[in-house]
Amino acid sequence: MSNQLKYVLDETQIPKFWYNLTADLPVPLPLVLHPGTKQLAGPADLEPLFPMALIEQEVTSEREIEIPEPIRDVYRMWRPSPLYRARRLEQALGTPAKIYYKNEGVSPAGSHKPNTAVPQAWYNKEAGIQRLSTETGAGQWGASLAFAGALFGIDVTVFQVRVSYDQKPYRRALMETYGARCIASPSDQTDSGRAMLALDPNSPGSLGMAISEAVEIAAKDPAVKYALGSVLNHVMLHQTIIGEEAIKQFEMAGDDPDVVIGCTGGGSNFAGIAFPFLGLQLRGGRKRRIIAVEPASCPTLTRGTYAYDFGDTAHLTPLMKMHTLGSTFMPPATHSGGLRYHGMAPMVSHVLELGLIEARAYHQKACFDAGVQFARCEGIVPAPESTHAVRCAIDEALRCKAEGKAETILFNLSGHGHFDMGAYINYFEGRMIDQDYDEGALATALAVLPAVPA
Amino acid sequence: MSNQLKYVLDETQIPKFWYNLTADLPVPLPLVLHPGTKQLAGPADLEPLFPMALIEQEVTSEREIEIPEPIRDVYRMWRPSPLYRARRLEQALGTPAKIYYKNEGVSPAGSHKPNTAVPQAWYNKEAGIQRLSTETGAGQWGASLAFAGALFGIDVTVFQVRVSYDQKPYRRALMETYGARCIASPSDQTDSGRAMLALDPNSPGSLGMAISEAVEIAAKDPAVKYALGSVLNHVMLHQTIIGEEAIKQFEMAGDDPDVVIGCTGGGSNFAGIAFPFLGLQLRGGRKRRIIAVEPASCPTLTRGTYAYDFGDTAHLTPLMKMHTLGSTFMPPATHSGGLRYHGMAPMVSHVLELGLIEARAYHQKACFDAGVQFARCEGIVPAPESTHAVRCAIDEALRCKAEGKAETILFNLSGHGHFDMGAYINYFEGRMIDQDYDEGALATALAVLPAVPA
Repeated sequence: MSNQLKYVLDETQIPKFWYNLTADLPVPLPLVLHPGTKQLAGPADLEPLFPMALIEQEVTSEREIEIPEPIRDVYRMWRPSPLYRARRLEQALGTPAKIYYKNEGVSPAGSHKPNTAVPQAWYNKEAGIQRLSTETGAGQWGASLAFAGALFGIDVTVFQVRVSYDQKPYRRALMETYGARCIASPSDQTDSGRAMLALDPNSPGSLGMAISEAVEIAAKDPAVKYALGSVLNHVMLHQTIIGEEAIKQFEMAGDDPDVVIGCTGGGSNFAGIAFPFLGLQLRGGRKRRIIAVEPASCPTLTRGTYAYDFGDTAHLTPLMKMHTLGSTFMPPATHSGGLRYHGMAPMVSHVLELGLIEARAYHQKACFDAGVQFARCEGIVPAPESTHAVRCAIDEALRCKAEGKAETILFNLSGHGHFDMGAYINYFEGRMIDQDYDEGALATALAVLPAVPA
Repeated sequence: MSNQLKYVLDETQIPKFWYNLTADLPVPLPLVLHPGTKQLAGPADLEPLFPMALIEQEVTSEREIEIPEPIRDVYRMWRPSPLYRARRLEQALGTPAKIYYKNEGVSPAGSHKPNTAVPQAWYNKEAGIQRLSTETGAGQWGASLAFAGALFGIDVTVFQVRVSYDQKPYRRALMETYGARCIASPSDQTDSGRAMLALDPNSPGSLGMAISEAVEIAAKDPAVKYALGSVLNHVMLHQTIIGEEAIKQFEMAGDDPDVVIGCTGGGSNFAGIAFPFLGLQLRGGRKRRIIAVEPASCPTLTRGTYAYDFGDTAHLTPLMKMHTLGSTFMPPATHSGGLRYHGMAPMVSHVLELGLIEARAYHQKACFDAGVQFARCEGIVPAPESTHAVRCAIDEALRCKAEGKAETILFNLSGHGHFDMGAYINYFEGRMIDQDYDEGALATALAVLPAVPA
């Protein structure tokens, strides 16, 4: 075992293919339904929203999808991202475990999101599209699509959840630096936004609401397409570049993870690190523990129902079978805006149902404890979302210490927290609370899940 | 010429030596004087403030100073930093010039400052010191020393210039995340702070004032040493790792810079990229143009006097011969707090006097124009300080375009602007003004420079 701290690949070693877990699933993924007819939705149903190349990626069962050269050309601006050995953290914990993390915070926008923003922008550009609409919660996705839009000359409009728009002016400034336009959601720019404002003029907004607005803009204007930063199959696909690189880097390190960890909001950074390792297992490789970590305030995987549901509040999206808290459920405010979503990627939900992964929920203060400990050892301040993965990695390392096991732990550091320091200020000043969701509201939201044909 | 975008070295290729320009200077550097006696200051005069290992580095004329292994061990957390070819920026400008930049924003604290914070903390630790005091303007230096303190278990107290303390809560939160204590300066914790508050209870502070407070704390308490983030010879020395890496990376690229550019506040990131190239020239290599870029609102190199002056407002520091606007000069507020300093590193001043480098001043709006163009091409949002180097690199590339010359331009991207997005907001909202300094105040400040023996 070498003493190396970081495993760096040069840009010629960027993977040439994304990995599609669909090819190796023991049970096929449930299909998507049309929101109106509730019948199977075909590619044509998605065409108002996405270019055909992305729709094909959404439904293909091909195992390897070649990454077009112009996308790899952008990826090399920051990829391959480094794989780090967290030696100082290991020492601080006194654990025999080895802790590794993939640092996706090195991207220009500061998270894993450009991994899919860049291909989405490029495929739209190839299809002749010059305008994209999207939503953002914490701001990571909006900033990433803004960045990709700047590179390919595409106009980007971002519906930013109101509470994030107001509380994170720096995140908005980043999107504007990249040339995007930000609109606080709910807004008066769409029917769905106006309807929400009529119900509550002071609505703090939610990701589900912002999705409705962004989808509506694209559905009504043939010149505009929509881009989603998580949940969908093609998004999971693009993110697998994280795990594909990690596999190469573990070969360099002469090591192999026993436990693979990612935080989950819509599921994309988790899928990105986990699916390539899960694919190795499904094709006959060894079994690893794979853990999805979510906020206790929005516990989609651990407390949600596995059922068909809408992806948005106004019910404009297709119905997907997923773990859901109900599209009408309003999660309590939290500093991890990127994890505050009622649903979960159908692929992540599916592999949890198949028993191929585990899920775990944490309250935010425990996550920030871990984030601060990590920062003082490793120097990097994690995004609030990423602190969930850090918490789980530390807990697994402490379990290894208690059990005297030298396991190898890998987690995905999905992004840095430079635009989220307000959350750290609240944490230090004792203003951070571990808010639980409302059990009654959850029951109500789950009671009105849409009925679908058997 | 390859098509490569970034030149990445692995951690085994971190330079083993810092480069000391003193060894190759054609004329020796003027010596430092005692602030009280105005006679030559010896190592003993500096002992209350610094450990002997750093004092030796301050005065040595040895060419290569070995980097101790524990420091290289920390450097490898982010070093070697990547050398980028700015292909997208070149295309946007339509220039035949090749533009490269060294990205120092990849450090945990987000700038080049940890290059010296880490050795300063380590040498103090080795000398048995457990407490350090320092000052910070923009916050880059304070965050970096806080980071280094966290790694070596040293308590760090940072006097943060009042205007920065109030306007940049995120920067303060970063220091606190690393475990440092921040105090707004001028403060009531020191004699010099109280004296300044007596003169102006609403003083916005300045780097010169904050230095006085931090120095006073160390001078009065033998258990506390002082750390300075720029200006001094040993700081320049530590930063040369930037240029040493760049020389190796240009060998990889099969290229060689004709123009080398860095922004200057106290001079450290400029020295870091420039001195190793200047050393090659002084030892018989070819001549390159080397350009120091400063803010027009605080034009130390282009409008200051080359004379002995104090480094701080309360006149506690030794006298150094440097370009200065006068220690009593108060530069107008600007978004580049890191460049808002009345003096300049004696080594940088000296090589300008010898005609070995050029100096140029820019107003801030032109710099932010460049910063935004850079962000939209290269994805990275530069720190306000670094936009000065970007502006100069773009102007040099446009000159090459006008002259039809395919020169190779290198600049140092000293840090990212994630904690400075308030400046970008002001820029976009038209609230940024190009404030000139007060000619009368400058004349007054220069009229009271200390008299020293001939």
